[in-house]
Amino acid sequence: MEMIDARRVHELLDYKGLIPALETAHLGGMPKQSDRLIYQEPNPEGQPDIFIILPAWQPQEGILAKLVTSFPNNKARHNLPTVNSVYVFINADTGVTEAVIDGEAMIFRKTSSDSALGSKILSRPDAENMLMIGAGGLAPYLVEAHMAARPSIKSVKIWNRTAANAEALADTLSERGIAAHAVDDLDAAVSQADIISSATMAQTPHIKGKLLKPGAHIDLVGSFTPEMREADDDVLTRASIFVDHRQTTTRSGEFLGPYERGIITPDDVKGDLFELCQGKVPGRQSADEITMMKNGGGSHIDYYVAKYLMDRHYGRTFTTSCAS
Amino acid sequence: MEMIDARRVHELLDYKGLIPALETAHLGGMPKQSDRLIYQEPNPEGQPDIFIILPAWQPQEGILAKLVTSFPNNKARHNLPTVNSVYVFINADTGVTEAVIDGEAMIFRKTSSDSALGSKILSRPDAENMLMIGAGGLAPYLVEAHMAARPSIKSVKIWNRTAANAEALADTLSERGIAAHAVDDLDAAVSQADIISSATMAQTPHIKGKLLKPGAHIDLVGSFTPEMREADDDVLTRASIFVDHRQTTTRSGEFLGPYERGIITPDDVKGDLFELCQGKVPGRQSADEITMMKNGGGSHIDYYVAKYLMDRHYGRTFTTSCAS
Repeated sequence: MEMIDARRVHELLDYKGLIPALETAHLGGMPKQSDRLIYQEPNPEGQPDIFIILPAWQPQEGILAKLVTSFPNNKARHNLPTVNSVYVFINADTGVTEAVIDGEAMIFRKTSSDSALGSKILSRPDAENMLMIGAGGLAPYLVEAHMAARPSIKSVKIWNRTAANAEALADTLSERGIAAHAVDDLDAAVSQADIISSATMAQTPHIKGKLLKPGAHIDLVGSFTPEMREADDDVLTRASIFVDHRQTTTRSGEFLGPYERGIITPDDVKGDLFELCQGKVPGRQSADEITMMKNGGGSHIDYYVAKYLMDRHYGRTFTTSCAS
Repeated sequence: MEMIDARRVHELLDYKGLIPALETAHLGGMPKQSDRLIYQEPNPEGQPDIFIILPAWQPQEGILAKLVTSFPNNKARHNLPTVNSVYVFINADTGVTEAVIDGEAMIFRKTSSDSALGSKILSRPDAENMLMIGAGGLAPYLVEAHMAARPSIKSVKIWNRTAANAEALADTLSERGIAAHAVDDLDAAVSQADIISSATMAQTPHIKGKLLKPGAHIDLVGSFTPEMREADDDVLTRASIFVDHRQTTTRSGEFLGPYERGIITPDDVKGDLFELCQGKVPGRQSADEITMMKNGGGSHIDYYVAKYLMDRHYGRTFTTSCAS
């Protein structure tokens, strides 16, 4: 059994290899069994503590168990992140555990490459101006993943509710040779961006659809509960709507409220990454079309990324029977 | 996150410390949440492959996730054990994974100490002759655990369907200074034993109750499905019956068939380790009484043992809020 730490995860999951691998995996289906199990414990200080197990089993190939805790009081109590996780990869031919993998690094890489795959298919190939909304742990990975998917990106603006964090992220990215700048005026930045990636905990939309530039692509990462939302109704009505997986629409506030209020219907969701990668639905159809993809994650993406990681770790060419 | 390998598990879980710790844990209840989740994949060559997750969560204290695979064709296909496993221990105050623990070593130690705790309460304090039925991976641990619980044991006989394995085990134990001998005549050995521990995959009972010596204690480890069985009806009718946990009786062939045929009823099960350790039911009441405990395991025992292991690993005194 090997311990694959964060440094090694980032090394193995460079976007130049990971994004095409994820595209290959989407040529097929989900791992045969994938599920999520949620345990909760009430917490006297507020939101409950949560322990989630996401197992995925592709017969003869791999079993992945992703173990995630979300302890909302961690920051205040221990100055620790709310979410902590670890991945266990089991060889599904032998049942033997092959690796325990750093969870945070995996989540950063898989979430950002999921968004990047959407952009690779949906954004304009000549997109130059990226806007990153949010400056949390995931933000630098989203910027790098989008730049790998669209090497045409020339500048990255960063907006964050707490401006100092946007500036710190801009500095970090600048040190890596990226033309990154923090901005104060979110609306102005939205109106100029070719690609907008948003990864916040917002419950009130901050992307105004009216301001969007023709041809823009919007990547929504934040909302994972019915209460959370990043894009307003105008984004939904102006954009061609895609998701990474159809089931995403059943959990995210980007869809649930607008469905209820009749702003859009499920038929307005044009397709997911499976349909896009397999050519069952067309992606962008004109230079002026506005596209949007809601990234909802899911244990199948964890599985694809973990299988790719293991193959690279052992020096094998990536394959998954999910794709065949 | 630490990797606790087999050598370290065995070092930390010496029986002199582990058996009393397990007794302490049984002064209270189960971890607040414990469960088992079973996934199956059909196998063209025979029995299905199984993946089991056993999570246990004691709030503020610990979350244990035991991941077990059982791949019945492993021996023939890969010369690997059928069962493989790994334990993940998460700090339930922070949600951070503290350790990944070798599963095989944990299973050997927790199963054997569970049996030993039963013997410590139920067997005669002057028991001298032990019979070990079965010579699989667990057998040497059962012998050592029973000897730790009953230092009065002077000799150990070993019977196994394949005699050569019994001899190999006797040699191994002899090298450790234990007076161990392989025997051919199972019935004779049964009739002489003060303590019988049986850990086999038998579906046909091999312990004949008629032969039992007055005062004997029978420790049944093998049967974990309705089809498996090690003790015949006479054992059940002659012995005072105990279990490690009441739920054991709902899964094991030691009970299901005899219940159905009216040999015993659930009322004949006098108590479990919780009731015994807490003094709610009496254990052995006379020198001639025959006692039997069915060891069925369970995620609560994994939890207690893992918590004890972590406390010892960090040099802390063992505590668990399960016990209070």
